[in-house]
Amino acid sequence: MAEKPKVVIIGAGFGGLTAAQALARAAVEVTLIDRHNFHYFQPLLYQVATAALSPADIAWPIRGILKRQKNATVLMATVTGIDTAARLVHSGPVSIPYDYLVLATGATHSYFGHPEWAAVAPGLKQIEDATAIRRKVLLAFEKAELIDDPQEQRRLLTFVVVGGGPTGVEMAGAIAEVAHHALPAEFRRIDPHAARVVLIEAGPRLLSSFPEDLSVYAHKALERMGVEVMTSARVTNCDGGGVDLEGGRIEAGSLVWAAGVIASPAAEWVRAERDRAGRVKVGPDLTIPGHPEIFAIGDTAAVVDATGRQVPGIAPAAKQMGRYVADVVAARVSGRSIPRPFRYRHQGDLATIGRKAAVVKLDHMHLKGFIGWVFWSVAHVYFLIGLRNRAVVAFSWMWNYFTHQRGARLIVDGPAGQEIARAEKALPRTSAVEVTRETSPAAARPAGTDWR
Amino acid sequence: MAEKPKVVIIGAGFGGLTAAQALARAAVEVTLIDRHNFHYFQPLLYQVATAALSPADIAWPIRGILKRQKNATVLMATVTGIDTAARLVHSGPVSIPYDYLVLATGATHSYFGHPEWAAVAPGLKQIEDATAIRRKVLLAFEKAELIDDPQEQRRLLTFVVVGGGPTGVEMAGAIAEVAHHALPAEFRRIDPHAARVVLIEAGPRLLSSFPEDLSVYAHKALERMGVEVMTSARVTNCDGGGVDLEGGRIEAGSLVWAAGVIASPAAEWVRAERDRAGRVKVGPDLTIPGHPEIFAIGDTAAVVDATGRQVPGIAPAAKQMGRYVADVVAARVSGRSIPRPFRYRHQGDLATIGRKAAVVKLDHMHLKGFIGWVFWSVAHVYFLIGLRNRAVVAFSWMWNYFTHQRGARLIVDGPAGQEIARAEKALPRTSAVEVTRETSPAAARPAGTDWR
Repeated sequence: MAEKPKVVIIGAGFGGLTAAQALARAAVEVTLIDRHNFHYFQPLLYQVATAALSPADIAWPIRGILKRQKNATVLMATVTGIDTAARLVHSGPVSIPYDYLVLATGATHSYFGHPEWAAVAPGLKQIEDATAIRRKVLLAFEKAELIDDPQEQRRLLTFVVVGGGPTGVEMAGAIAEVAHHALPAEFRRIDPHAARVVLIEAGPRLLSSFPEDLSVYAHKALERMGVEVMTSARVTNCDGGGVDLEGGRIEAGSLVWAAGVIASPAAEWVRAERDRAGRVKVGPDLTIPGHPEIFAIGDTAAVVDATGRQVPGIAPAAKQMGRYVADVVAARVSGRSIPRPFRYRHQGDLATIGRKAAVVKLDHMHLKGFIGWVFWSVAHVYFLIGLRNRAVVAFSWMWNYFTHQRGARLIVDGPAGQEIARAEKALPRTSAVEVTRETSPAAARPAGTDWR
Repeated sequence: MAEKPKVVIIGAGFGGLTAAQALARAAVEVTLIDRHNFHYFQPLLYQVATAALSPADIAWPIRGILKRQKNATVLMATVTGIDTAARLVHSGPVSIPYDYLVLATGATHSYFGHPEWAAVAPGLKQIEDATAIRRKVLLAFEKAELIDDPQEQRRLLTFVVVGGGPTGVEMAGAIAEVAHHALPAEFRRIDPHAARVVLIEAGPRLLSSFPEDLSVYAHKALERMGVEVMTSARVTNCDGGGVDLEGGRIEAGSLVWAAGVIASPAAEWVRAERDRAGRVKVGPDLTIPGHPEIFAIGDTAAVVDATGRQVPGIAPAAKQMGRYVADVVAARVSGRSIPRPFRYRHQGDLATIGRKAAVVKLDHMHLKGFIGWVFWSVAHVYFLIGLRNRAVVAFSWMWNYFTHQRGARLIVDGPAGQEIARAEKALPRTSAVEVTRETSPAAARPAGTDWR
């Protein structure tokens, strides 16, 4: 018996995972490669970043998802290159042969030519990004409580989100909720109510991919939640102390970048032509020109579909492409006729603004406010994978809704004391905490011992 | 009105948190300082390390716990020293004055004079330890699936736990469950059933603090679960490749240290006398000789109570000391008579071995097996803080019980690809994955590009 054709898929996001699953009954061997051992639900990443959910609530081991699919092998590995002549994917010394290759490696943040901003204004694409932002936001309140300088406290309690698309709107709304509802009763020396949350958008309105009435609603809803919304405002510099705009500077302790994305370097691996956003230009069957055995899907690909529409970089589009590519491969392998060119079906746009407010655009319907928020919540729980996570997320949201408490407010993922210690070094020696008693001049300061 | 006396408590573990809460009605100002922003339930840390629970399930923001206690301020800060003459706690440039000081900084792992073992055999005291061990254990399976060398696969799939106390027994049982129940269906190139889990105890029996019949039961129950139990076995060296015993060597990819603890350096801060385990020697009222205003409690203190019993380093003991110290402070502040010397009430010993098996020793009752496990489960859910975490943990356990699935199997907290990339570098160039096609000699290996 001849060996079955080998399909290698790089990336287990929405596109890659869907392609692997859609090949379950095809006469092929599927190998799904990812840097991580889990698939995660990117649309809810901002809830991890704002401590409403734990990483495990929105992520699933890829092996668990595919465990019953006997023709699928999962490898956790970092791809280091592709040999298109020999048809091999390299990961360090390991080489994985393919007959068909699907590039589904997604996108990362784009800082518009300023990669140095990444260090001070993290974006939100990976689970690790979300826990880093969570850590930063929560530490800002902790640091402010510990120190005394009112100016530095004000700076620490200023949060700037750059980019008024769905991610930026969701982040700004969620940070405002944390500051104004979840935390106030818990601090004694600062008032979290006084925290400033600023959302900066370069274009004339928020949510530019939505109809204008929903943009206006989102703008007003955010302002009602205490977010300062600045449109037509362009960021000229980000640094550790704040952000410069064309019209002035905002001193801020935390910046979050939600302004642009660029495709992962898959195009480099296969030396394919790419557009300005780094995406591989593909043909109507999503293959790369000159390489009918290599597909690019999801955020990795620049696709103009059969209707002439530029396909947007959102989860439903990636899933549709994954399913299409699986159909093409299955047809070719079995000698059936190739499906018609890829055609994208837009199902709608959703963005949530906060507790009880969301905007939803379906075919002929605009939803907003509470009803939009209920639709958004049900849709997101529905699209989660696995009964367990659905139950846990639904429970967490209900809990959150009734109590305003956020369940995942841990500052971990690093040496917790160090960042504060660094912040302290930058401060003057006096502190409001030291008010009632003078330091005895005879007592030498003990050498710094780290308490572990 | 005179200012209220200031009570500073360092450490928000069981002892420190209980002391802070027990002072809620005293006429004092309480400041609770911790390096972390959360209190966590150490007895369930091994479930985070073995992916059954998320960190947030067993941890609570300290601020949240104390938010209604108006006389309590929480500071997240790393203590760098104490000036006992001036009565100041230093954290970098911040100084916090006290009238009463409670040292409740807990313990850390002891490697019996071999601190270099810490890098290869992590212990299990902090949340970060638990996620590091989880990462290491899960990565071992991922690496083994990726490579081809059977000897290295065997080594990667060997897990050694050093120390046969409750933590060691719980870790060994849980790793065996992960290997033999949770993972087998998910791998294609290795068989997790073949994983070796070895529990090494230097003494003649496991759980030496328990009655002998329960030790014998635990030993047999672990063996039934596929754990190799070695008693009277002494570790002479730990390194990245495995562990040396007096009787030979075990090649192992993962070592977990559960053999010894040493108190945190609180004794150094206050220049107090300490015992061999680093614990501060305290008087019958838990104060430090010569410093009636400084208390040490929990794992920080070496306490022989009024009955002449050495108080064990467990959670109930720390809580009792916390409550006692609060009574002493409240009595002194209000001029009431000082409580009698501290007297420890031992409530029992519990250890779980795995799904459906635990050992429980109460006053006149030994429980084991399923009934012990039910008792253990109910007791642990009961002692968790907050309805939300109780509900989530109970749900996770029921889910786990019926499905064998573990909900928190994420490899995060670090650059996920790097460790694998390092492991790959140590391997020969050939790999079983490369079997069907030779590398085209003309195709130069592309330069290593990191896929992000």
